[in-house]
Amino acid sequence: MKLTYSLGSPFARKVRITAAELGLTDRIELVPATVAPTQPNETYSHDISPLRKLPALILDDGHVIIDSYVIVEYLDELAGGKLIPASGPTRWQVKSEHAMIQGMTDAMLLCRYETGVRPKELQWPKWVDDQWDRAWQGLTRFEHQPDVLARPIDITQIALTSLLVYADFRFPDCGWRKAFPNLDAFHAKMLQRPSVSGSLPPAA
Amino acid sequence: MKLTYSLGSPFARKVRITAAELGLTDRIELVPATVAPTQPNETYSHDISPLRKLPALILDDGHVIIDSYVIVEYLDELAGGKLIPASGPTRWQVKSEHAMIQGMTDAMLLCRYETGVRPKELQWPKWVDDQWDRAWQGLTRFEHQPDVLARPIDITQIALTSLLVYADFRFPDCGWRKAFPNLDAFHAKMLQRPSVSGSLPPAA
Repeated sequence: MKLTYSLGSPFARKVRITAAELGLTDRIELVPATVAPTQPNETYSHDISPLRKLPALILDDGHVIIDSYVIVEYLDELAGGKLIPASGPTRWQVKSEHAMIQGMTDAMLLCRYETGVRPKELQWPKWVDDQWDRAWQGLTRFEHQPDVLARPIDITQIALTSLLVYADFRFPDCGWRKAFPNLDAFHAKMLQRPSVSGSLPPAA
Repeated sequence: MKLTYSLGSPFARKVRITAAELGLTDRIELVPATVAPTQPNETYSHDISPLRKLPALILDDGHVIIDSYVIVEYLDELAGGKLIPASGPTRWQVKSEHAMIQGMTDAMLLCRYETGVRPKELQWPKWVDDQWDRAWQGLTRFEHQPDVLARPIDITQIALTSLLVYADFRFPDCGWRKAFPNLDAFHAKMLQRPSVSGSLPPAA
């Protein structure tokens, strides 16, 4: 299998950590790709996905699996179901948590596109404040869910770690550690895992 | 169960059509909600989801399932698995198609927020062109996949229908029918289903 990725992408990082935790790293060839809003990439659009987003998983038979949400489910099933509960109420709880973190990550990316990609004179602070607030209120929720942070590793924890790593990478002064001491301790614990420490972005 | 929704939301429409196709309409109470970028809604943030997005499914025990992706999977499982293949390569194909349409819908919503919510003087045509191109190239793909459009009803077809209805609602002059005759015929066929005709948005 091949995985399109970039070192900065939080969604690709989630999949890379997932693959490592599932013991699938050796079966996945990492393929660097560059996609960014307002920059055309016809090859990626045509061959991989018209959404031009990372990551995509290209199976050996040529089929393409998107997006990161579906990819981690595919890999988890391939490995026997270790990171997503197979049934019952906890299945839907974990999948909802995962979707929430997916949305928080999208919101943080929209902040990045607004402040780092859009021309300065076209930026709308109210938009950034709104998107940032969604991510921040989401983090506030997880800060107050110690049971979620203390469970055996699962896709919620991997997605949350990827989001915190992204916050450090793109918004190093946002102050999440001070605001969320439980998340800080959780992040430090996750960093001890080779799956996480081996997939960090380059220094900003 | 309760479902937060608005008549305009394409993601809520996907869930409403899904519920009708699965025979679950009577078990779901529709709860109108108003969320929009840059407009605070503290009640929704706190009680439902910090992402402030529609729809959310509130179970009888109070647990909240988000987002529409997870909700349709939940409902499909509840009904015995009719709209998403349970296993094998087609499972991942349909889930990838669904994720692609989810991303196309997100892209169209970003166009709407740019041209209908953001102040005129802060709009960035290059951003709109980029997001619109993602949705349009995605539609181009499905236009050339007659097998997908002709299958027994599944979540791909429901999501695609919801997207086309949204295009008519918010971008009535975009010309998708002329550009995509196969999708036009598919949409007309889907409109004959009570699940679809009963969930259309108000006239723009």
